[in-house]
Amino acid sequence: MPLLVVGSVALDCVETTTDQRDDILGGSAVYFSYAARFFSPVRMIGAVGEDWPREHTRLLEDRGIDTSGLQTIPGGKTFRWRGRYLPNMNDRETLEVHLNVLEQFRPQLNNTHRDCRFLFLGNASPVVQLDVLNQAKGAVLTVADTMDLWINIQRDELGQLLQRIDGLVLNDSEAKLLADDENLVRAGQAVLKMGPKFVVVKKGEHGAMFFSEHEMYVLPAYPTARVVDPTGAGDSFAGGMMGHLAALGRFDPQALKEALAYGVVTASYTVEDFSLDRLTAIDRADLDRRLAEYRQMLMF
Amino acid sequence: MPLLVVGSVALDCVETTTDQRDDILGGSAVYFSYAARFFSPVRMIGAVGEDWPREHTRLLEDRGIDTSGLQTIPGGKTFRWRGRYLPNMNDRETLEVHLNVLEQFRPQLNNTHRDCRFLFLGNASPVVQLDVLNQAKGAVLTVADTMDLWINIQRDELGQLLQRIDGLVLNDSEAKLLADDENLVRAGQAVLKMGPKFVVVKKGEHGAMFFSEHEMYVLPAYPTARVVDPTGAGDSFAGGMMGHLAALGRFDPQALKEALAYGVVTASYTVEDFSLDRLTAIDRADLDRRLAEYRQMLMF
Repeated sequence: MPLLVVGSVALDCVETTTDQRDDILGGSAVYFSYAARFFSPVRMIGAVGEDWPREHTRLLEDRGIDTSGLQTIPGGKTFRWRGRYLPNMNDRETLEVHLNVLEQFRPQLNNTHRDCRFLFLGNASPVVQLDVLNQAKGAVLTVADTMDLWINIQRDELGQLLQRIDGLVLNDSEAKLLADDENLVRAGQAVLKMGPKFVVVKKGEHGAMFFSEHEMYVLPAYPTARVVDPTGAGDSFAGGMMGHLAALGRFDPQALKEALAYGVVTASYTVEDFSLDRLTAIDRADLDRRLAEYRQMLMF
Repeated sequence: MPLLVVGSVALDCVETTTDQRDDILGGSAVYFSYAARFFSPVRMIGAVGEDWPREHTRLLEDRGIDTSGLQTIPGGKTFRWRGRYLPNMNDRETLEVHLNVLEQFRPQLNNTHRDCRFLFLGNASPVVQLDVLNQAKGAVLTVADTMDLWINIQRDELGQLLQRIDGLVLNDSEAKLLADDENLVRAGQAVLKMGPKFVVVKKGEHGAMFFSEHEMYVLPAYPTARVVDPTGAGDSFAGGMMGHLAALGRFDPQALKEALAYGVVTASYTVEDFSLDRLTAIDRADLDRRLAEYRQMLMF
């Protein structure tokens, strides 16, 4: 079942303690799409500038991702992010952000987009996310990401969004900030009370927690010795999760849990190299093999 | 099968952001024994001073713990620790440490102690731990804890200990320090190469990792909304783990994994109140109920 994602398309500069890459392919919509495409057809909406290398679009199209919603803004420049990871490879500092074309971008859905039953709203202003939600008439499962910036400066608008979506995906520090509670279990439960039917709290190298009215659980990250670049781990987690749900065409508790596990496994590959380099080197069978190992790991 | 533990017996002062307790029952041998006793008979070796309240010993004896190895040092004062937890309740700072009777304590095993087939060496100088190990002639499974202090000042002696024990239990930050590697997977594997047959890395609110020659896995912590005092979580984790192994009388991979899960669940109760307050309020059925929930939580 086709899946629609609206999010950022970026050129990232990533610094780690041992390595550095400039102007590499990134952005929430990119990581999400590429991860989700292992499971289900994906349609992507985003904006880039005239500096955008065409081969990046081709990489996505070669994977069968529908990029007809990827708009090139005349005279514009692509969104850029520069970050540096601390030696623990879990925490990072943002060194530069240039919104560029994202500053003015208001996503427009065409008929094919509006038909999609599964929708993921990548991190953006809740005003923009609400606008997309209003256009996505066919969506039966809507999941959004957010970030500390919007919690701090557009809390009311975020509150409105939370009343309208089915699921929210956010980081542990963001959940604590939004709920004003340092205990992650209570924080997740508090965010759930703000409206969504379920909340997924991403804990980076420590996995993810799930909250719904009747369920609460935590799944660890798949342990990998090879953490090269964690950028995009959260978005490919969401991509694996939503991709699996769209493939199943349902989102009951059992489907959601398995989807979270696929998200964990997909993200575990993403971090093993820069940009999409690791994800382009694997296929669906690799994901299924690692999922089986992961399932076994949690059985006692 | 009886289990022997050698470790600290303490009077703790614990400060959290909302509460404080002075001179409460604590220490690695105490938390370990009380937790292990849900599963198996326990014999405890430790030292206290003349200030030691007799009712603490009675609490342990009421649970059937053999405290004949608990020595009162004439004129001595009991080991004291004062710590303050940060708002996240996972990190803490040590405000005061008074070794007191522990400064000179050299544990002496009697015949009953020497017969024990399962031995846990609570955190102490590796010199003391090696001395106990030399006396424990009947031990078939020996597991030790350690801490950053010994890694920093007695690394050679710790290295000798690691060649002699079956299992090492330590914190994530200690594993990284010992292996000089910020990646926890690589750090655990490096510590394993130093000698022990298995290594358990405790990650606090994020669970625990297991490393052996043929296996590597991570189990999350059991999520609890009620974190009152994390003191003793690591020692009661070890107590639940070793207690279950001693009860089974074996330590094959399957037994070890189930033991880790029991450790996680036991520790999840410990943190729900100060000192042993929560553990004294539950019984084995509570542990088994939570273990079943935990098992279910990790199944997808």
